[in-house]
Amino acid sequence: MSELLKTAIRDHGRVEGDLVMVDGFLNHRVDVSLMTEIGRWLAAALGPADAVVTSEASGIAPAFATAEALGVPMIFAKKRPGQPPGPISRSVHSPTKGDTPWLHINPRALDGLATVVIVDDFLSKGRTAAALVEMLEEFGVTVIGVGFCIEKAYEGGRDLLESLDVRVVAAATVTGIEDGRPNVT
Amino acid sequence: MSELLKTAIRDHGRVEGDLVMVDGFLNHRVDVSLMTEIGRWLAAALGPADAVVTSEASGIAPAFATAEALGVPMIFAKKRPGQPPGPISRSVHSPTKGDTPWLHINPRALDGLATVVIVDDFLSKGRTAAALVEMLEEFGVTVIGVGFCIEKAYEGGRDLLESLDVRVVAAATVTGIEDGRPNVT
Repeated sequence: MSELLKTAIRDHGRVEGDLVMVDGFLNHRVDVSLMTEIGRWLAAALGPADAVVTSEASGIAPAFATAEALGVPMIFAKKRPGQPPGPISRSVHSPTKGDTPWLHINPRALDGLATVVIVDDFLSKGRTAAALVEMLEEFGVTVIGVGFCIEKAYEGGRDLLESLDVRVVAAATVTGIEDGRPNVT
Repeated sequence: MSELLKTAIRDHGRVEGDLVMVDGFLNHRVDVSLMTEIGRWLAAALGPADAVVTSEASGIAPAFATAEALGVPMIFAKKRPGQPPGPISRSVHSPTKGDTPWLHINPRALDGLATVVIVDDFLSKGRTAAALVEMLEEFGVTVIGVGFCIEKAYEGGRDLLESLDVRVVAAATVTGIEDGRPNVT
């Protein structure tokens, strides 16, 4: 666990309905020194890989920081509305945005990569990360682990990802919401 | 100018129609060490500021690298389809995505910021950066400069931004396309 991140969630996280809002330091205004330290934590927990993969947009900052710590490239899957943009695409519904865009990775972006790790800001139900795992394995790339800044332990995402045989790590875990405050471990 | 970036565009940039494609190292698969060096270049060229502002998604990596070099937070404006998501929003058409999302910044994200710089991957017509300048000034934040990884000098964006009284810098400039290759200075 990243103690700095746990403290930031406790001190600056807000609860709106069943959402834990961390837009003040993680996914709208980004505390870059905190994110650099989360990237180092995720790099150490996930181990070496040839690249870090994420999807736009909130995953880009933690994936960049993790890739910087590992000394490897970072690839972000594009999200497009409408029709599937290529042969290996997945549609994933976003409850926060209310849309269902297509995730797309250009095969050229994966040239020369044998192993990757996936990084994103939140683990909730795990659908986006699961779609990335499926796409990457269809491309012949091995996903050796999936890492998140914050896991919401009560949303079931870990079970879905572990059923795909990938290791799951999180720099901080929210186990629930109590009296309008997130419980963080 | 960043010599590393100029070399990357010359060696790995591709031309499709009138687009210069740099998705192999800048805005799909990201060469993180190159981006870190571009961030240092932009930080030095734009000078000190309280934060770096960009819009999702391709601006996040260069804005993060610039913020890291300046030691300040990074804020990325969200893009949402549909209705304006708040009082200070702008709609900006994206020719590459074919949609016209709303740009939105939560006023809370700007707490305590007097001056900012804006960073994005490409300067083409400058509409997204101009919308950010207008939004930030409406929030009472001074934009002291706008920086890009790559300026397409033939698209007129610099004139639009300079008409808003902001300084414009670019780590590399494409002056045109000749025999299917980008001319880079």
